[in-house]
Amino acid sequence: MPLIHVQLVDGPTAEQRREFLAAVTDAACTHLGVARQSVRVWLTPIAADDFMAGGVTAAERRAEAARSATGGA
Amino acid sequence: MPLIHVQLVDGPTAEQRREFLAAVTDAACTHLGVARQSVRVWLTPIAADDFMAGGVTAAERRAEAARSATGGA
Amino acid sequence: MPLIHVQLVDGPTAEQRREFLAAVTDAACTHLGVARQSVRVWLTPIAADDFMAGGVTAAERRAEAARSATGGA
Amino acid sequence: MPLIHVQLVDGPTAEQRREFLAAVTDAACTHLGVARQSVRVWLTPIAADDFMAGGVTAAERRAEAARSATGGA
Amino acid sequence: MPLIHVQLVDGPTAEQRREFLAAVTDAACTHLGVARQSVRVWLTPIAADDFMAGGVTAAERRAEAARSATGGA
Amino acid sequence: MPLIHVQLVDGPTAEQRREFLAAVTDAACTHLGVARQSVRVWLTPIAADDFMAGGVTAAERRAEAARSATGGA
Repeated sequence: MPLIHVQLVDGPTAEQRREFLAAVTDAACTHLGVARQSVRVWLTPIAADDFMAGGVTAAERRAEAARSATGGA
Repeated sequence: MPLIHVQLVDGPTAEQRREFLAAVTDAACTHLGVARQSVRVWLTPIAADDFMAGGVTAAERRAEAARSATGGA
Repeated sequence: MPLIHVQLVDGPTAEQRREFLAAVTDAACTHLGVARQSVRVWLTPIAADDFMAGGVTAAERRAEAARSATGGA
Repeated sequence: MPLIHVQLVDGPTAEQRREFLAAVTDAACTHLGVARQSVRVWLTPIAADDFMAGGVTAAERRAEAARSATGGA
Repeated sequence: MPLIHVQLVDGPTAEQRREFLAAVTDAACTHLGVARQSVRVWLTPIAADDFMAGGVTAAERRAEAARSATGGA
Repeated sequence: MPLIHVQLVDGPTAEQRREFLAAVTDAACTHLGVARQSVRVWLTPIAADDFMAGGVTAAERRAEAARSATGGA
């Protein structure tokens, strides 16, 4: 009966997300010894502007990475 | 002061959702003995592709149900 | 498939909590048109010291109510 | 390592939301004595129709406030 | 930066839980293409009396399973 | 009406937690322009063994830090 809520800044494709949900379901069966039917795993998005880690938003980190990639100021 | 978060794959109409929120508020007052003013209940959507139960996504279940309904392969 | 997480400062008895979980399950079937088997509702506690509404914790509100009840300063 | 999830009916601007996330990060460092790098704070929206407080949705409260403001019935 | 919250009725051992957290971290790196350092996964318990699936609590299911195992009425 | 859920590995004192809840309430009023009465902020604990960041649990990090502090192997 594990309830597994994944929150994620948009990025991975639908296929990647599906594979991840399936892998987590497998891991629950393997390591927690629960029945596959009882596993619920779901994913909801967070906007890049609205997620902050260590005082910096995901949007700001992406902009910084893009600037570094193009050697920009 | 109950805080009640409902997560739901899209489906019910706005009116159905409102009636549900009201019914949950009533149930909290009736069964938990809390004041109506203190009850917070809210609903957030999950995309059908991003909810997996027993290893199958809600989108896959819907597609399967549609195929069965039309006798499709 | 509704996933309903209830967070509550300790207070209601086990029997009250069970009746509430059952009433919410019924409300989901009635108003959201979902199958009973698909409804997941669960309740987790919040310590009275660790819940704050409008700048006042539940523990402080309870102490205030107790003082008022005994006419205390 | 505090994990701080803020759920909010739409309203504040992107700038207001960013300032709030930063202020919460500061408060965690100041009051919880945790390292800035370890703080995760994120914000996800709730539709006004889908948030109910005391039996009234945020959308209904807004409509009521608008009527009062214009002296409407 | 995935944030993965697992809620689980008590049952698995500390070792089982740790292996599961590690497997979910691996799955996030493999399928979502995120850096290991950015993955946060955590697990919080739900009391068996306070989790209801399809109108039946986990505690009731366990009692039923125990009765069936001992051939009890 | 912001709903702010803080999840935290045990550590801070009751007083530190209360000051943090109050600071977050202030930040919501200041930056989100919401009424103090509408702010709900609450904190729930995560066991050190059950929180994993970057593949390492909080309990393991603490044990590592203690070893380093005592110059242990």
